[in-house]
Amino acid sequence: MTKTNPGRFFEDYQIGQVIRHAVPRTVAEGERAMYHALYPARHALYSSDEFASASGLEGSPMDDMIAFHIVFGKTVPDVSLNAIANLGYAEGRWLKPVWPGDTLRSESEVIGLKENSNGKSGVLWVRTRGLNQMDEVVLEYVRWVMVRKRDAASPAPDAVTPELASTVAALDLVVPEGLDFSDYDFDLAGEPYRWGDYQVGEIIDHVDGVTVEEAEHMLATRLWQNTAKVHFDVTAREDGKRLIYGGHVISMARALSFNGLANAQMIVALNAGAHANPCFSGDTIRAWSEVLDKADTSAPGVGAIRLRLVAHKGAAGDHQLRGEDGKYASNILLDLDVWALMPK
Amino acid sequence: MTKTNPGRFFEDYQIGQVIRHAVPRTVAEGERAMYHALYPARHALYSSDEFASASGLEGSPMDDMIAFHIVFGKTVPDVSLNAIANLGYAEGRWLKPVWPGDTLRSESEVIGLKENSNGKSGVLWVRTRGLNQMDEVVLEYVRWVMVRKRDAASPAPDAVTPELASTVAALDLVVPEGLDFSDYDFDLAGEPYRWGDYQVGEIIDHVDGVTVEEAEHMLATRLWQNTAKVHFDVTAREDGKRLIYGGHVISMARALSFNGLANAQMIVALNAGAHANPCFSGDTIRAWSEVLDKADTSAPGVGAIRLRLVAHKGAAGDHQLRGEDGKYASNILLDLDVWALMPK
Amino acid sequence: MTKTNPGRFFEDYQIGQVIRHAVPRTVAEGERAMYHALYPARHALYSSDEFASASGLEGSPMDDMIAFHIVFGKTVPDVSLNAIANLGYAEGRWLKPVWPGDTLRSESEVIGLKENSNGKSGVLWVRTRGLNQMDEVVLEYVRWVMVRKRDAASPAPDAVTPELASTVAALDLVVPEGLDFSDYDFDLAGEPYRWGDYQVGEIIDHVDGVTVEEAEHMLATRLWQNTAKVHFDVTAREDGKRLIYGGHVISMARALSFNGLANAQMIVALNAGAHANPCFSGDTIRAWSEVLDKADTSAPGVGAIRLRLVAHKGAAGDHQLRGEDGKYASNILLDLDVWALMPK
Repeated sequence: MTKTNPGRFFEDYQIGQVIRHAVPRTVAEGERAMYHALYPARHALYSSDEFASASGLEGSPMDDMIAFHIVFGKTVPDVSLNAIANLGYAEGRWLKPVWPGDTLRSESEVIGLKENSNGKSGVLWVRTRGLNQMDEVVLEYVRWVMVRKRDAASPAPDAVTPELASTVAALDLVVPEGLDFSDYDFDLAGEPYRWGDYQVGEIIDHVDGVTVEEAEHMLATRLWQNTAKVHFDVTAREDGKRLIYGGHVISMARALSFNGLANAQMIVALNAGAHANPCFSGDTIRAWSEVLDKADTSAPGVGAIRLRLVAHKGAAGDHQLRGEDGKYASNILLDLDVWALMPK
Repeated sequence: MTKTNPGRFFEDYQIGQVIRHAVPRTVAEGERAMYHALYPARHALYSSDEFASASGLEGSPMDDMIAFHIVFGKTVPDVSLNAIANLGYAEGRWLKPVWPGDTLRSESEVIGLKENSNGKSGVLWVRTRGLNQMDEVVLEYVRWVMVRKRDAASPAPDAVTPELASTVAALDLVVPEGLDFSDYDFDLAGEPYRWGDYQVGEIIDHVDGVTVEEAEHMLATRLWQNTAKVHFDVTAREDGKRLIYGGHVISMARALSFNGLANAQMIVALNAGAHANPCFSGDTIRAWSEVLDKADTSAPGVGAIRLRLVAHKGAAGDHQLRGEDGKYASNILLDLDVWALMPK
Repeated sequence: MTKTNPGRFFEDYQIGQVIRHAVPRTVAEGERAMYHALYPARHALYSSDEFASASGLEGSPMDDMIAFHIVFGKTVPDVSLNAIANLGYAEGRWLKPVWPGDTLRSESEVIGLKENSNGKSGVLWVRTRGLNQMDEVVLEYVRWVMVRKRDAASPAPDAVTPELASTVAALDLVVPEGLDFSDYDFDLAGEPYRWGDYQVGEIIDHVDGVTVEEAEHMLATRLWQNTAKVHFDVTAREDGKRLIYGGHVISMARALSFNGLANAQMIVALNAGAHANPCFSGDTIRAWSEVLDKADTSAPGVGAIRLRLVAHKGAAGDHQLRGEDGKYASNILLDLDVWALMPK
């Protein structure tokens, strides 16, 4: 009898199944400091208790992406250990701030299954929820991945393809209780631009770049207790390279976006996302954003802005996302679609 | 007059001498987060305050290995700065949990001295105790090292070789006050296997591997305030390589052992240990365990399991610890013998 | 309209101008743990709450250099993004301890401006203050940098060169309230040498060396939210090398100085400082100190010692700071002049 976890295969999922993921995690000031060391993160609401208090919160919450990475990391052993590809995200919403001292756990419901025509793999859709110690949902999102079958001869399940919103509707965004940007200090936040200063279609080049190192992405990925071996073991892939966790690129791009979007303080929805190309140690990550939409919120002084956040490698480019063939250009690492909250 | 510490030589130790080691250390959430970033550590009791509370503790204690590394690190300037080799461990026991906010210090008593026949070095045995701010012993263990003599002409001391138990007796294991695994949540812990599912002689291959980097092992070794220069200075060894602190390999192997031993929650005794071969940056560390013994405890739902934890480098192997010559195989990094606590 | 910050040029400064720097930062146990992981820091006052309490403080404050780096890091986007060189420091004083949980922000006053004869750049002097959440100044220092002009044709401002003290007078040193070294435990601190054991002119070789890695200096520099791109982006400099933040060398040298100056517990003044040569990944940093002066303080058991702290790379040297031409020798990285507090 082997006691080590071989991961689940496509045959191991059924529609409606709910998987409680292992290893709850208490997060605190240590994770916050590590986040600041790993990424050039400077959004004031996550840097200063005073700034957060002045914005109506009880203190500085854990970065939205810390919540995401921890909730996501717990799903890996059950969802993506035998994944061939991470295909997409949808309907992601942050529902409650995560505070230092909170304990997070995750669970996922299988909402879609569709075998591929080759009979060797299939697509799995799960809706994942992150919960705190009071069983409140702090985050939810849908993710779909291509998963290997254990045995090509297994019969295909009835295909169920979930209907997913192409974007989270502005009315469905959840603004943290008490958030108030009426007395927002733009000097302390770092930039003078408010919600009204951004135009739909506008592109912001975030200018800075970070050349990434093996030690860093492994520290990050372990911090989120994500144990997919391709990130850690040089022998796990044929090319002898450690694949950088896609979430590391997300956090790097989000942090780089401070330069031009310092006031896009909180991420409240993940509309869509694609890890367009793999990222490896030695790549220099840069980012640009495009304003996709804007909406009002009922919170005082708070507007919502929908952003495409693109990470790419190599030289500052021409903001070209796709080639003539319609495919992502080879330098594109990430194409993320989010809603953020800004002062009006 | 030089004020820098040249370290102690074999002549500087006398039987019965007690050395109070320098630099007490307060440990808190920051050290816990760093530990999660440095190692793929997922044992639930050290990850979640909620899980620890449900197990009868007042919260999640600091990882047993954090306590070990900090207590050990303090001894380095007094015990092993001029050590040629770290020869062994025995009679190690964790006696009290270490909580965030505790301050640890160490002291060592010289319990054995035996000059080598070459007259250039000798073996030193010390019993080291780690104490918290209430002067409670939280950890104790015996370690022996080969230490250089300052002067080969110095007379040899009377040889004293301490009698050491080959293993800590099950009856001497100390279970943390209040620990209760009666309502253990196997889903949250990550694996279904309980104490009764493990057989003496069983071997568990932990499957995963981590390729180690210079930056990581130096971050770890400094975190424990272990300042042995071979770990940090490429010019300190003739081969120009930085030797990785043996404790880094211990923690890596322990963390990797989650996969197959997720429920071996707490390490309570260190029976023996050997750093079989040196580890360097670029090595890929893997681990396997062998069940050596089992014992009951008086705590509700808690059993004890004695494990051989082996770390090796390179490809997943044949679980061969030694060659035909009886010596450790060249790929073996660590051979550790511990008692751990599991739910029954 | 571009929203990304191009940084200020020489023309953008006026005498008397006060710049409130962005992104306040709450510091806590996480930053302390990271500091211990990044540097071989062992000064007992910053390692142990118990040791600090026994020295009359309410607990262990954040390391003086953490306060410096955070206050400094905030000035980078406003002061040195277009700097050609960091020329010097003067009149630096630590005025209040920083405690875990404090929130720091920075502001700088322009106190000097002098255009260079080439018309392409000028020297800018600023007095920077770090403030806590109660608006108390915790740290102040003067820094001067050479800054590019936006346009060589811009008229030169009236030259103002501030008069700066060559050293902070001993009477102006601020000893933290309550500090008392009457019952100092030299065993726990790690060395027996007290204030009276050091002679002006004495040189202490700190012996140890650390070979630095890209991942480490980037973690450190980001931790202080210092975003100067030369530290992160291999394409930012013509030589394709990432320049290591000068403050990383300061902290490394300060930590290495434990070996020989373990009792120089607190840094209370920065008299002067020069980053003599650039530091790159792969360099092995070593340090030596020279006692420049000594002074009494009114606090019980507390003496002040003025130290030149020199960091160099490569082999242990001859303590030669400058060549025959009067310029810094090519292996010198840092020449720092500080006042520290020691037990008498």
